[in-house]
Amino acid sequence: MTRLNISSQPLTRPLSLVDWYGQVRQLSETLSAPLAIEDYGIQSMPDVSPTKWHLAHVTWFFETFLLLPYVEGYTVFHPQFGYLFNSYYEAIGQRHPRPERGLLSRPTVEEVYRYRAYVDDAMRSLLTTQADHPDVQERTILGLHHEQQHQELLLTDIKHVLALNPLRPAYREDLPRFESAPTPRKETWLDYPENLYSIGFEGADFAFDNESPKHPVYLQDFWLASRLVTNGEYLEFMEAGGYAKPEYWLAEGWGMVQTQGWNAPLYWETVDGDWQLMTLGGMRSLNLDEPVCHVSYFEAEAYATWAGKRLPTEAEWEVAAESVNPAGNLLEQGYLHPLPATDISRPDQLFGDVWEWTQSAYLPYPGYKAASGAIGEYNGKFMCNQMVLRGGSCVTPPGHIRATYRNFFPTSARWQFSGIRLAH
Amino acid sequence: MTRLNISSQPLTRPLSLVDWYGQVRQLSETLSAPLAIEDYGIQSMPDVSPTKWHLAHVTWFFETFLLLPYVEGYTVFHPQFGYLFNSYYEAIGQRHPRPERGLLSRPTVEEVYRYRAYVDDAMRSLLTTQADHPDVQERTILGLHHEQQHQELLLTDIKHVLALNPLRPAYREDLPRFESAPTPRKETWLDYPENLYSIGFEGADFAFDNESPKHPVYLQDFWLASRLVTNGEYLEFMEAGGYAKPEYWLAEGWGMVQTQGWNAPLYWETVDGDWQLMTLGGMRSLNLDEPVCHVSYFEAEAYATWAGKRLPTEAEWEVAAESVNPAGNLLEQGYLHPLPATDISRPDQLFGDVWEWTQSAYLPYPGYKAASGAIGEYNGKFMCNQMVLRGGSCVTPPGHIRATYRNFFPTSARWQFSGIRLAH
Amino acid sequence: MTRLNISSQPLTRPLSLVDWYGQVRQLSETLSAPLAIEDYGIQSMPDVSPTKWHLAHVTWFFETFLLLPYVEGYTVFHPQFGYLFNSYYEAIGQRHPRPERGLLSRPTVEEVYRYRAYVDDAMRSLLTTQADHPDVQERTILGLHHEQQHQELLLTDIKHVLALNPLRPAYREDLPRFESAPTPRKETWLDYPENLYSIGFEGADFAFDNESPKHPVYLQDFWLASRLVTNGEYLEFMEAGGYAKPEYWLAEGWGMVQTQGWNAPLYWETVDGDWQLMTLGGMRSLNLDEPVCHVSYFEAEAYATWAGKRLPTEAEWEVAAESVNPAGNLLEQGYLHPLPATDISRPDQLFGDVWEWTQSAYLPYPGYKAASGAIGEYNGKFMCNQMVLRGGSCVTPPGHIRATYRNFFPTSARWQFSGIRLAH
Amino acid sequence: MTRLNISSQPLTRPLSLVDWYGQVRQLSETLSAPLAIEDYGIQSMPDVSPTKWHLAHVTWFFETFLLLPYVEGYTVFHPQFGYLFNSYYEAIGQRHPRPERGLLSRPTVEEVYRYRAYVDDAMRSLLTTQADHPDVQERTILGLHHEQQHQELLLTDIKHVLALNPLRPAYREDLPRFESAPTPRKETWLDYPENLYSIGFEGADFAFDNESPKHPVYLQDFWLASRLVTNGEYLEFMEAGGYAKPEYWLAEGWGMVQTQGWNAPLYWETVDGDWQLMTLGGMRSLNLDEPVCHVSYFEAEAYATWAGKRLPTEAEWEVAAESVNPAGNLLEQGYLHPLPATDISRPDQLFGDVWEWTQSAYLPYPGYKAASGAIGEYNGKFMCNQMVLRGGSCVTPPGHIRATYRNFFPTSARWQFSGIRLAH
Repeated sequence: MTRLNISSQPLTRPLSLVDWYGQVRQLSETLSAPLAIEDYGIQSMPDVSPTKWHLAHVTWFFETFLLLPYVEGYTVFHPQFGYLFNSYYEAIGQRHPRPERGLLSRPTVEEVYRYRAYVDDAMRSLLTTQADHPDVQERTILGLHHEQQHQELLLTDIKHVLALNPLRPAYREDLPRFESAPTPRKETWLDYPENLYSIGFEGADFAFDNESPKHPVYLQDFWLASRLVTNGEYLEFMEAGGYAKPEYWLAEGWGMVQTQGWNAPLYWETVDGDWQLMTLGGMRSLNLDEPVCHVSYFEAEAYATWAGKRLPTEAEWEVAAESVNPAGNLLEQGYLHPLPATDISRPDQLFGDVWEWTQSAYLPYPGYKAASGAIGEYNGKFMCNQMVLRGGSCVTPPGHIRATYRNFFPTSARWQFSGIRLAH
Repeated sequence: MTRLNISSQPLTRPLSLVDWYGQVRQLSETLSAPLAIEDYGIQSMPDVSPTKWHLAHVTWFFETFLLLPYVEGYTVFHPQFGYLFNSYYEAIGQRHPRPERGLLSRPTVEEVYRYRAYVDDAMRSLLTTQADHPDVQERTILGLHHEQQHQELLLTDIKHVLALNPLRPAYREDLPRFESAPTPRKETWLDYPENLYSIGFEGADFAFDNESPKHPVYLQDFWLASRLVTNGEYLEFMEAGGYAKPEYWLAEGWGMVQTQGWNAPLYWETVDGDWQLMTLGGMRSLNLDEPVCHVSYFEAEAYATWAGKRLPTEAEWEVAAESVNPAGNLLEQGYLHPLPATDISRPDQLFGDVWEWTQSAYLPYPGYKAASGAIGEYNGKFMCNQMVLRGGSCVTPPGHIRATYRNFFPTSARWQFSGIRLAH
Repeated sequence: MTRLNISSQPLTRPLSLVDWYGQVRQLSETLSAPLAIEDYGIQSMPDVSPTKWHLAHVTWFFETFLLLPYVEGYTVFHPQFGYLFNSYYEAIGQRHPRPERGLLSRPTVEEVYRYRAYVDDAMRSLLTTQADHPDVQERTILGLHHEQQHQELLLTDIKHVLALNPLRPAYREDLPRFESAPTPRKETWLDYPENLYSIGFEGADFAFDNESPKHPVYLQDFWLASRLVTNGEYLEFMEAGGYAKPEYWLAEGWGMVQTQGWNAPLYWETVDGDWQLMTLGGMRSLNLDEPVCHVSYFEAEAYATWAGKRLPTEAEWEVAAESVNPAGNLLEQGYLHPLPATDISRPDQLFGDVWEWTQSAYLPYPGYKAASGAIGEYNGKFMCNQMVLRGGSCVTPPGHIRATYRNFFPTSARWQFSGIRLAH
Repeated sequence: MTRLNISSQPLTRPLSLVDWYGQVRQLSETLSAPLAIEDYGIQSMPDVSPTKWHLAHVTWFFETFLLLPYVEGYTVFHPQFGYLFNSYYEAIGQRHPRPERGLLSRPTVEEVYRYRAYVDDAMRSLLTTQADHPDVQERTILGLHHEQQHQELLLTDIKHVLALNPLRPAYREDLPRFESAPTPRKETWLDYPENLYSIGFEGADFAFDNESPKHPVYLQDFWLASRLVTNGEYLEFMEAGGYAKPEYWLAEGWGMVQTQGWNAPLYWETVDGDWQLMTLGGMRSLNLDEPVCHVSYFEAEAYATWAGKRLPTEAEWEVAAESVNPAGNLLEQGYLHPLPATDISRPDQLFGDVWEWTQSAYLPYPGYKAASGAIGEYNGKFMCNQMVLRGGSCVTPPGHIRATYRNFFPTSARWQFSGIRLAH
């Protein structure tokens, strides 16, 4: 296993689209490189996809939405890959059932890499010959952001696969560890005044359709915690009977505690009486200063109730984040794990580390319109029964996060790098 | 079976609390009177409760929250009724599993009526002797609104029970039918200007805690349909392939269509080639002018997408309803079925007929605080994964609806009297 | 509730078929008489049928197999009862799903009794006018034995319904209790020599088709316990870790112990530290001398393994029972509960008390032929994945048991009156 | 992929145990050689185990039952492999849940092969140094027969894995095809006279404990078909409405037809209007002369009912097979697929081709005793709710079949190489 140095790569978007294409595509393979062939195929639960599937699906996206419509006479790599690697686009046709992605030993990993190379050749040619075609540009940029989303999912999913294995294998043994001064014991509270604000995306750069349109929103006075909730603070909640007292929980969350036997965040386990947690670098002792991670919305909400606070709305979060540089402990830092806060005089950890659960349901903004055709299925059709998360995480690729970015997951999801920031 | 004349009863709230108590309590029994003993015990799906359970549970509410704390030396009617008839109050203790409510033949219906009489005697005495105790007043009023909610559920649930029976028995054969001029063919669109509005409850009258606090909300220009979507319009959607084309549906809704085999609203069935629907008055031919009823949020949202419109937000709905008298085809009309619109020059059918799905998730208003103790479990702990409905229905008891009232159900629920009003 | 005196009724088969018809039909109603209307409709698990369903189904049997084919111009009582009360006869047509029998409040109990009276009138007329028609005779006799089977099921099922209720209501408070000398502490072992025996039914009297043909079977020497395993002996097994040690169990049985949480026979519960059990007469203290009852095949087999013995085969049991009078603690004794053994010098408790699990799978005898048509579905199509039980129980109607009688249930069934006799 | 020539290997048991050990162990790896790394890890349904698991589990058997007890100071290869590769031995301790065997990417295939080599070294040393230890001999022989069983399962399971893949990859493209004269159109019927026979194993050679003791069994006259039921004959059953008419089916089987949508044997599919079937050599056209394969007990029984015949009992089958040489189309033939019959003057295809469903439940023989300790869990604890199959199949390893051999599977199992021979 070669030492990967993600952070040494120039990960900001370069000038030419074809170069950026190459850079993003390469990163997916770089991220997969530490895996054994056997790791590529596992689907540890229906929500998780095998690494192999991620690598092929993002490739299918380019083949389906770019090469087939814009390259005359293009021959698909394999006639059944459309069936196997369509994720959820009803307009494209039938597809392999999602919960059965882990049952496919073929195509092999080697064939998937050949598929990628085949599509990359054709894409490079397309991007060279039709560099100015606006639809080609727009869709390629969408495809690259799409692949970046799957890069985050790839790491999130492989963590689940490895953590489920009784051998607890590390994704990489050689991940850097953070050496630092301890986190300030108490958060501070940053005050934002009542006002008519605007949130949502507007501009020439790329954003997903669910971030638009920009629109006014009236907010009352609110305070936002300067940093994320730490493992140490969450442990206090646990020791105060957090998982034993229904009064802190939404009814559906309390049902999950009971039926799923939740008694700590995902990936925490007691080893010889001490809390340890599984990371992409293997099993580690619990660091009380790190942000708590891998909690569901239910746990985030219960923690906030116990603490006498609440979660922020997505509008509040965005207002706070608007003026902050979207930098932090993201994928290119190479830690692949959330880090302790370092500064509490201003909003810290807004970008990177962990996705922050908001108390906002994932719904269309006023005036939202999905694109027509299959690409319109990208975001809009998931707008129910999910909550919005903001800010990216330690496995979010470079250039893929911004203040208006809306991530979303069901209230019971725990395998994402998701954590808690309080408001009141 | 005696002819019931619900509408002849003086159903507005009278001056004295003890009289109002008697009136509300009597209505529950009047509504149950047409049933056979056998009908009282059926739980046709986990969401439905047996009539007998409703009658006992609302009684348990008074026993638990009024008689036990405020009547010295009060002896409960039966030591195990607390276990059997607690719905979801964790703070009160263990309870009988919800999906097993239909497995209990005992207590018998006659015992439940004796339980009601026992508690009514004690309540009347309490309301007489401690008429001025503010907590007694407040909790009694809450208990009566609670019982009114269960009156609606009682009718909604018994409809499900009877509709499931292959014999399709009517709740009452003698329900009045509406004789009227046909509904105007087209709705009109009522325009509301962009503004900073206020929504939510404030005042001295009763409202549930989830309606508060009153707070500002900024709305952009919107148009609201003057009337509800009719059966005839919904049939056009069906005939246009509404249940066959995924492009109209949220992903989760499309999943329901496929796994549940939805192809029409609940209670519609084809009899000898014609659409009929089950009502509380038995099977009837489809009336194209009546509002469509018993659709899920998914169906409401899919219909709106097909129609090129959208559902209103709850704030939009409330702004429109604020200035409208909360009257309409409610329970006291005695139809127990939605009626055609009669007027499209101003908002019609806002109150009564069917609950109107909004595109707003059921979440706490800014500054919402649940009450402390068990009563605080009334509303707040259900604030996730549900959508808000507004306006009451043809089985909502008199005096129980207002512009700020927030009803809520999961996106797949169809057995409520729920329908569609469009916005854009 | 009137005192029922089942045992005072002349329960042996009288001379005329029409009189016997009346006697059997009456017994079903006598057995139902102690129930509240509410008790008639409950289906406490899919295997259980509501009392009302039993009463209607056995009536449907006469209507379908006697009145419709043999009474010209016969009009069915209700056109949909064929759909509602067909149990499993595919040749007769569609039927209401078995697990939903408890969801039907209609027909009411009163209507079901009218259905019975209507069919009884027609049957009496048929049996009078066509008394000599051989098919009418044969099918009526089958129908009466069929109703007797459902009489046993009716009591077995209502016990389950009442036991599930947290109020633990008794079927009858006034059941007689057995006053006796204690059971002899140790069973004796009765020896049967190796030989070529014959088992199975042959003769002019009634027997079910699955008891035929009579055929030779070679048995090696075997010993049969003189009496049933007692509660006291079973408690020793429990105290020796019977439900905690996988070595006593079939793999599938051990799976049931784990997933179902079995730790005692069905209907046993600890009340204030003592074992009690639910009976048709209500909750009673555990009597160590009574035969253990309501155990599955898995528990019977595990007990035998722990005791260093085995269960008998059905051939061994039948050889032992052949020369014994088919009398004992059957329904007409009126105890409705198994009784202690009184004699261990010869085989005791072979008939009545509890059905005895054998180690024989329920399979066709050599040369078995099912009848043609719908009646052929009576027995043959259930010949897989069930085990044979022998000897009848304390709720088996008079005249309904014989040495060749083969009862059968799946290995996990516990709600039958089933117990254990050892062999080696 | 190297051409494998299984049949050229000397597969009969040689003189020395250590050599036989090497031969059997080598065959498992030879059978795995055609697979891609990705194929080794898939569990396509809970009944199927990944190839990797089979290879490790049989190795664990030697480590656990031979090396740990008989080699002083033996160090296990990996401390957690006992947890991962114990199949069902409760006495050995906790184990990884069976349905999750396919979720483990680690140990890798390469590590499993190193595990095998490590154990093989230690076993060879043990077999050399303690060649005369009777327990070592006995357990090694058991371990080798155990590995042979898993060789059959390995091929059976990988067929299921590959058949489930929409790409329908072949296990080996180069399997030989049978070139032959057509099967004789009609079977003949071989007559066996009524008699007191003996069945079961007795002797010095190896047999599993479930084949003993030898015991008398009385059989009436019976006829056995000279050959297996062919695809052509089964197709006639299908065309006569075999899967549409409940009258041919056991009730539980008809339930499977309805809920599972069975309409042909497993692995049959219509391609462009013609029946094809998936084989270890890939997709092939249906050969009408080949024995039907991959049918459940329910289908075998339904076919027999339709044909007016029945399945043989295991005693009948054994009586017929006793005098026949246990040779036929077994694994060493290399076809890995059943072949047409060639001779109908005497019992043909009794050994090899397909396992033959009998109408005998899998139960202990009279006097059966399981071994004590963990090894006693090998067979006895599965003796319920399964049916016996006889005769081996085209993937049964050489030397692993005999007339007394009892295979067993649940009535709904179809993925085994199982077929039909009629009796009457």
